[in-house]
Amino acid sequence: MSRLRNDTFLRALLRQPTDYTPLWLMRQAGRYLPEYCETRRRAGSFMDLCRNPALACEVTLQPLARYELDAAILFSDILTVPDAMGLGLYFTEGEGPRFERPLREEWEIRNLSAPDPHLELQYVMDAVAEIRRALDGSVPLIGFSGSPWTLACYMVEGGSSSDYRRIKTLAYSRPDLLHHILSVTADAVIAYLNAQIESGAQAVMVFDSWGGVLSEDAYRTFSLAYLERVVAGLIRERDGERVPNIVFTKGGGLWLERIADIGCDAVGLDWTMDIGRARARVGDRVALQGNLDPSVLFAPPDVVAAEACKVLDSFGPHDGHVFNLGHGISQFTPPESVSALVEAVHDHSRRIRRP
Amino acid sequence: MSRLRNDTFLRALLRQPTDYTPLWLMRQAGRYLPEYCETRRRAGSFMDLCRNPALACEVTLQPLARYELDAAILFSDILTVPDAMGLGLYFTEGEGPRFERPLREEWEIRNLSAPDPHLELQYVMDAVAEIRRALDGSVPLIGFSGSPWTLACYMVEGGSSSDYRRIKTLAYSRPDLLHHILSVTADAVIAYLNAQIESGAQAVMVFDSWGGVLSEDAYRTFSLAYLERVVAGLIRERDGERVPNIVFTKGGGLWLERIADIGCDAVGLDWTMDIGRARARVGDRVALQGNLDPSVLFAPPDVVAAEACKVLDSFGPHDGHVFNLGHGISQFTPPESVSALVEAVHDHSRRIRRP
Repeated sequence: MSRLRNDTFLRALLRQPTDYTPLWLMRQAGRYLPEYCETRRRAGSFMDLCRNPALACEVTLQPLARYELDAAILFSDILTVPDAMGLGLYFTEGEGPRFERPLREEWEIRNLSAPDPHLELQYVMDAVAEIRRALDGSVPLIGFSGSPWTLACYMVEGGSSSDYRRIKTLAYSRPDLLHHILSVTADAVIAYLNAQIESGAQAVMVFDSWGGVLSEDAYRTFSLAYLERVVAGLIRERDGERVPNIVFTKGGGLWLERIADIGCDAVGLDWTMDIGRARARVGDRVALQGNLDPSVLFAPPDVVAAEACKVLDSFGPHDGHVFNLGHGISQFTPPESVSALVEAVHDHSRRIRRP
Repeated sequence: MSRLRNDTFLRALLRQPTDYTPLWLMRQAGRYLPEYCETRRRAGSFMDLCRNPALACEVTLQPLARYELDAAILFSDILTVPDAMGLGLYFTEGEGPRFERPLREEWEIRNLSAPDPHLELQYVMDAVAEIRRALDGSVPLIGFSGSPWTLACYMVEGGSSSDYRRIKTLAYSRPDLLHHILSVTADAVIAYLNAQIESGAQAVMVFDSWGGVLSEDAYRTFSLAYLERVVAGLIRERDGERVPNIVFTKGGGLWLERIADIGCDAVGLDWTMDIGRARARVGDRVALQGNLDPSVLFAPPDVVAAEACKVLDSFGPHDGHVFNLGHGISQFTPPESVSALVEAVHDHSRRIRRP
C-alpha cells in the first residue's frame, strides 16, 4: 500500500496536532453531484451500484475530484448487514429502504445468525480494496456500518418509521427477544467492520441513526450497551497504524458523556448541540466530529462560510476536531456551496491555529 | 364560575405542595378512544369538529369520563392561528395538516397580519367557554397554541417536512423575512392565548413541536426569542387566580436551562431526557411536565406501571411535577393502558410523598 500523504483526518481523530481542521461530509458521494446521478443511472438500482465494486469506487472518488476533502468514505448502505442476514433489502422511490422479510415472529428472531463478511458481504470487501487502491495514499478511507439498534429498528419495522411502534413494543414487552436481535447484530457488525479494516479501511464509523428516539434508560439498555460491545470488538491497529473509530448517535447530544465513555476514539455530533459546549462537557477524552446543519448549504456562499467559521470558533483552537455536517448532505445542495464550505474550513482553521 | 374542586395541576405548575402528582396526557381526547372516533364521524372533517363548540366540548370531556385525569385540554389544532391568517388549513389522510396558500413570496410575507381572536377565532373562544361551563369546576382547563417558530414552519413549508428545507433556507438566506413572520405570529399567539384565558382557560401551553430541528444558535434566534416574547405578553392572573403557562420544545432537552430562563412557569419535556437529570439542571426555578415515552403504553399494564414509577422516582419527592407523556398519545394505544398509567401515577406519587 502507498504511504498516506494526507493523514490530517486520522491525526485529528486521535487528538494529535494538525495544521488545520480536516473535513469530510456524510453522504459526500451522493445525489447533489450530477456525476453521481450519471453513474447511478448506468448502474441501475441503488443496490446494483453498491454491489458493483468498480462503480462503487467510481462514485466514492467523485467528491474528492471536485473538492479538497480530507477523507473518502466507502460508498455503501447501512443496511447491507441485515440484507446479508436474508431480510431482502430493497428501495422504493420516496419511501427509502425497506425489507421484504422484516422480523415479525419469534422463530424468525431465534433463527437470525451473523453473516460471514467474506461470503454474503464480499462485494463490500471488494469495493473497500478497490477504493483503497484507487486512492493511492491520497487520503484515508473510512469504512462504516449501522449500529445494532439502528439495524434492529429497520429489521423489525421493515423500513423507516414515524413512531417506531413495533420495535418499542418489543423493547417494552419482550426485551429478551430484542436483546437477542441486538446481540446477533452486534456480532455481525464487529465481523463486518473488522473485515473492512482487513480489506483496507483506515478508520471506521458506526451510524446510530435512530438512537435518539429512545428514552435515556432505553438508550443505555438497547443502543449504547451494544455500541460499547462493538467498539470493544474492533481491530485497533493494522499494519502498525492505529485504526480510529467514530460513534455517531443522531439526537444523542443529551447523552454525550456516556457515549464518550464507551471507549471510542471520536463522537459524531448532529447540529443541535453547540460544539463548544460539547467539548466543554467531554474535554479531550474523545475527538468530536461535526456539526454544521446541512441546511446551511442552501444559503449563499458567504453565509455558508460564516456559519462554518462559527462552528470552528465554537470548538476553539484545540486538537481533536473533524469538521463535518450534522447529518448527510441533502440531495438539493448546490455543489458550489460545498466549495465555499471546504475553503472556509481549511482557511479559517489554519488562521485560528496561528493567530 | 364554580369553585375548582381539583386544583392539583395548577398547584404543581406553581411548584406548590400537592398530595400526589397530577396527570394529563397530550392529545388525551383522540383517536385511541372509540367514543372520540364516533363523535369525529358525526362531525365530518377534523376541522368541522374543531369549529363546532358543542362537539369540541364533547370530545374534550370524553377522556375525563373514563380516567381520573387532573386537567382537561381544549380540543383544537395548533394551526388555527395561521388558518385565521388566511393560509387555508386542510388535512389529508396520512400526510397530516397542510396549507392551501403557504408563504412563498415576499409580498405574501409582508401582507401577513395577526388575526383578531374574537373574529376569525371566535369558534375557539366559544369552545373554551362551553368546556369551562361543562367542566363545572371539576378540573382546570388548559388552553394552547403552537409556538411562533412551529407555526412559521408549517406556514412556509405548507405542511410537515422531513428536512425543513424551505424555512431553513429562509432562516439562513433572508432572516429579515423570517423575523417578520415570527414577529407577526408572536403577536397573534399572545392575543390568541389571552383571549382563551379571558374565555375561561386556567392555564396555557405553547407547543414548540419543531424547535428541536434547529442548531442551538438558530433555536435561540428563531424560536426561543419569540417564546420569551409570548410568555412576557401573557395574562398572569385572572379573577384573582394565577394562570400558569407551560412551554414545550420537543427535542429541546439540550437547551433546558435556557428555556427555563424565559420566565415561564413550567417546561414540558419529551421522553429523551431523564427527568431527574432535568430537575438537577433547573432546580425549582420552573415546574417540569413529562415525560414517559408514549410507546410504553403499547406494553402490558404491569410494564406501563413500572415505567411510570421510574419517571416519578427519577423526579423524586419534590413539588413541581406534572406527569405527562413526552409526546401526544398514539392512536394505537389500548385504552386500558391509560387506566394502568393513571392508577400507577396517582398511587405511587402518594407513596413517595409519604414513605
